[in-house]
Amino acid sequence: MTRFALTLEFDGGPFMGLQRQDHGPSVQQSVEEAVEAITGEAVRMHAAGRTDTGVHALAMRAHVDIEKDIDAFRLMEGVNAKLRPDPIAVTACEVVPDDWHARFSCVGRAYVYRIANRRAPLTLERGRMWQVAAPLDAAAMHSAAQHLVGCHDFTTFRSAHCQAQSPLKTLDRLDVERAEGTGGSEVRIHAEARSFLHHQVRSMVGCLALVGMGRWSEDDMRQALEACDRQALGLNAPPDGLYFVKARYEGEAP
Amino acid sequence: MTRFALTLEFDGGPFMGLQRQDHGPSVQQSVEEAVEAITGEAVRMHAAGRTDTGVHALAMRAHVDIEKDIDAFRLMEGVNAKLRPDPIAVTACEVVPDDWHARFSCVGRAYVYRIANRRAPLTLERGRMWQVAAPLDAAAMHSAAQHLVGCHDFTTFRSAHCQAQSPLKTLDRLDVERAEGTGGSEVRIHAEARSFLHHQVRSMVGCLALVGMGRWSEDDMRQALEACDRQALGLNAPPDGLYFVKARYEGEAP
Repeated sequence: MTRFALTLEFDGGPFMGLQRQDHGPSVQQSVEEAVEAITGEAVRMHAAGRTDTGVHALAMRAHVDIEKDIDAFRLMEGVNAKLRPDPIAVTACEVVPDDWHARFSCVGRAYVYRIANRRAPLTLERGRMWQVAAPLDAAAMHSAAQHLVGCHDFTTFRSAHCQAQSPLKTLDRLDVERAEGTGGSEVRIHAEARSFLHHQVRSMVGCLALVGMGRWSEDDMRQALEACDRQALGLNAPPDGLYFVKARYEGEAP
Repeated sequence: MTRFALTLEFDGGPFMGLQRQDHGPSVQQSVEEAVEAITGEAVRMHAAGRTDTGVHALAMRAHVDIEKDIDAFRLMEGVNAKLRPDPIAVTACEVVPDDWHARFSCVGRAYVYRIANRRAPLTLERGRMWQVAAPLDAAAMHSAAQHLVGCHDFTTFRSAHCQAQSPLKTLDRLDVERAEGTGGSEVRIHAEARSFLHHQVRSMVGCLALVGMGRWSEDDMRQALEACDRQALGLNAPPDGLYFVKARYEGEAP
């Protein structure tokens, strides 16, 4: 048995999320079927994160175990060929030790959230960003975001369907910057933590947008966090703008 | 009568190009119908360039003449609402003098061509870039490109369907750079001229890719130009990676 680590890029639009579902297509199902088509083996894929419907990935990490003697390059090329026309690509593939686990060995996860801050509807970036027409104050958003950095009870920013045992998480980074993108004036939010609760990034982004619009103060953000109550959530941002960008493992650069 | 200048952003994928066609959807038809839905007037749109099927625009300029008394902001908002679900957006709209013409007053046009230089199939950038699997030498491409800058007979790089009276054009800029994008390692080509022949940018990019792959030398590029013969063309790049990015008018910054 050989364990292969895969780096996956995908457009989350057509999928009911990364994890296999009974009621619709998933990234996991597509990749498992492509691996089976190449190796003749039914495999189970494990991934660093469980992204939702419509959430994208630039570099999700995952692993599969394969009995057949196949080298990493041929596996990657074959799986990519079988994945067509699904918008999923294996951008890297390598042999890893048997005790390396894409989910349990992962010590850091990074997301980017992209907001198109403009009145005009999206064209090229449709499904790739959240369009917010009201002008956003990115500096105010960044300042309010700093109240969320550190170890907190994130119950307010957690989906009712979250399966994590504890609402306590340590948020290492939540930076907001204004950038120029093809979608026009873009506000980009960078979030990093060892792990996140279900909907945590989208919930934090939704509330930051309220701050950016001037509808919430920095203090409202602090109070929402301290409330530890899902009812205190101001707004949950749509999945379109969310990208899983990095999974970090022991011995890898931060 | 008031003349309005429109700045258009569009995904060229679903259209048979910018110009109105008998046999399929066009950007011109969609915009003209949206303006008519708002004003009740049949209008004709004139644009700075005539992009092909699948070619995108970040900031195409165009104009329409309207009799009805309507302000620029209301026109833009109304047209954007009527354009849904077509992936076209009016990102700016302003009143211009009656003798300002989107096509004939335009003194400079700029395109960007995006190549995804990677083996993995495209996902999020599908239809937005040209995927080239062979490693490209961007420095060699840039060097070869400089042979095309200046005033030349561009017959080799001109479509058989080109309607321009002369094959002589002055190319002001053809820069090749390597950049990091969401599509992985990206090679980006910037082309600027007062005007271009039909397929000129895609034809130049196709030959530059041959240089990047090491299949053409700098001298092959020079000879292709000097041949003044469409048969000397090495390769015509697909439309997916081509973006119209800027139209410049007298009195505007370069």
